[in-house]
Amino acid sequence: MSAAPSILVLDLVGIFVFAVSGGLVGIRARLDLFGIAVLAWVTGLGGGLIRDVFLGDVPPAGISDPWYLTAVLLAGVATVLLAPRVADLRRRNPDLRLGLITRMIRYLDAVGLATFAVTGAAKAVALGAPPLACVFVGGIAAVGGGALRDVLVGQVPEVLRREVYAVPALLGAAVVTGAAWLDALSMPVLVLAAVLVFVIRVAAIVLDLNVPTPRQTGVRP
Amino acid sequence: MSAAPSILVLDLVGIFVFAVSGGLVGIRARLDLFGIAVLAWVTGLGGGLIRDVFLGDVPPAGISDPWYLTAVLLAGVATVLLAPRVADLRRRNPDLRLGLITRMIRYLDAVGLATFAVTGAAKAVALGAPPLACVFVGGIAAVGGGALRDVLVGQVPEVLRREVYAVPALLGAAVVTGAAWLDALSMPVLVLAAVLVFVIRVAAIVLDLNVPTPRQTGVRP
Amino acid sequence: MSAAPSILVLDLVGIFVFAVSGGLVGIRARLDLFGIAVLAWVTGLGGGLIRDVFLGDVPPAGISDPWYLTAVLLAGVATVLLAPRVADLRRRNPDLRLGLITRMIRYLDAVGLATFAVTGAAKAVALGAPPLACVFVGGIAAVGGGALRDVLVGQVPEVLRREVYAVPALLGAAVVTGAAWLDALSMPVLVLAAVLVFVIRVAAIVLDLNVPTPRQTGVRP
Repeated sequence: MSAAPSILVLDLVGIFVFAVSGGLVGIRARLDLFGIAVLAWVTGLGGGLIRDVFLGDVPPAGISDPWYLTAVLLAGVATVLLAPRVADLRRRNPDLRLGLITRMIRYLDAVGLATFAVTGAAKAVALGAPPLACVFVGGIAAVGGGALRDVLVGQVPEVLRREVYAVPALLGAAVVTGAAWLDALSMPVLVLAAVLVFVIRVAAIVLDLNVPTPRQTGVRP
Repeated sequence: MSAAPSILVLDLVGIFVFAVSGGLVGIRARLDLFGIAVLAWVTGLGGGLIRDVFLGDVPPAGISDPWYLTAVLLAGVATVLLAPRVADLRRRNPDLRLGLITRMIRYLDAVGLATFAVTGAAKAVALGAPPLACVFVGGIAAVGGGALRDVLVGQVPEVLRREVYAVPALLGAAVVTGAAWLDALSMPVLVLAAVLVFVIRVAAIVLDLNVPTPRQTGVRP
Repeated sequence: MSAAPSILVLDLVGIFVFAVSGGLVGIRARLDLFGIAVLAWVTGLGGGLIRDVFLGDVPPAGISDPWYLTAVLLAGVATVLLAPRVADLRRRNPDLRLGLITRMIRYLDAVGLATFAVTGAAKAVALGAPPLACVFVGGIAAVGGGALRDVLVGQVPEVLRREVYAVPALLGAAVVTGAAWLDALSMPVLVLAAVLVFVIRVAAIVLDLNVPTPRQTGVRP
């Protein structure tokens, strides 16, 4: 498939931003450096690992491809460089801090959601999966890493709490699958599908900021 | 195998009731509509996804078979139609409500447990897995979706808290595996095995109601 | 590969100690007998299940090999025999008790971490996985069972909270992978690599005892 290089690039972008979001969640959960690194790894590669297992492409690229590992390592370094600035902000303005990290995590998450939905569906198409499976593999690849991240630190995953989270991911995967069915899958289509997911997700985040819902802390009944 | 159509029917029943139970857990955890839908999807298809990955039957039927998706969608609609009635009951009688939803979840769960234990073992037999693997694939398919459901909303899974939960599932899977070994696997055997699991599980629930144990809310030591 | 029997022996040791650690976590979390058994099973076999799925070796040995099941059953019996003595200690000295179980869990965990890191990498080598994948499969096999155990009882996994946990596992897996690359993989190398992991991990535990960090109970921000 001629779209292979752009799939790799989009995948690496997604791994990088997801890994940074995982590292930030680790900082917010006051984990030590090793815990932050593991959480960055799980978040960056988790969705792709589930995708590859579901597609029978084992060992998964996330543990055998040096590019993927490099992206996670760079994200780890970026997070560690970010950490002291975050600590600075915390000292100056305790109220702002939590909201700022949470917002950064959410926007990075939106980028990863967009790229993984598209590359997940494209990889499923390339491996000859049925159309329905292509859409769902894209959706699961997109939400899997973030869900693992949240479960590991004891939080109810974003995908269960946020109104418009899984839907744009499935939509983006459906666009890619439809384009493949029309034999029109190309680099611009992949990028446009990713932008579509990102725009819908960010619109949902912005609306969220305007219509704040009460934090659901009492989830365990 | 001549039992294939009845496997599909039992599987669809299990997916439907597990998905409804997932939706009800979502309502109880006060998730929004999208969260409820995702939780219904995970609960209905989770056990089957793990089963198919363990049997190497990828992409899993849960993401590639339109019947499976239809069962989950119908369950989602059923849950949404149930939701206002549940809200009504909540308003009229706050005490009753929680117990009622919890009891509904538990009985639906018992149906799903029974059908998934049987179809999981039967699918493993059909794909030529060793007998021990057939029993455990059935057991894991039966408890997997509910365990994922509970972990996602931050609860200790039923399978760890309930006295007789995994045991009847393993027993039902063993009956199916034994019948296949005797070359006696048929639709009536599958249905009888499922009824056996359901009866044992419901007996355990009823005994549970008679001998209530204190709720373990302080699980994290 | 001539190292196959020692892989099986090391694997069985790892399954046994991980299963006992899972049972002890179940006791500490005040689960009933069935919950303790399930948690022992998940902890003992979880890492190996993930390993085999990632290597495409399905159905996983953990659900199809009678040796593996026997190791888990023996661990279950051992845990049940341990339970009353633990209850005795609890009665005599409430303060000591929690620390004692927690310490036992941690040392058993170190043994399982060491053996699984080594056998995971060795199995990946035997199945012809790329070197990078061998290292990570070993690391994931080592930390997977314990992570599942902790998530199921609602705790943040050790691998995120402990300073030196994943690192020695990856190191041991790297030693095995390197030895295989040099065509020098043998029983003594496997045992030495496991001892290396164990010594580093135990050193970290002992240092931990000397430099206690505050318990992170406020993980959900």
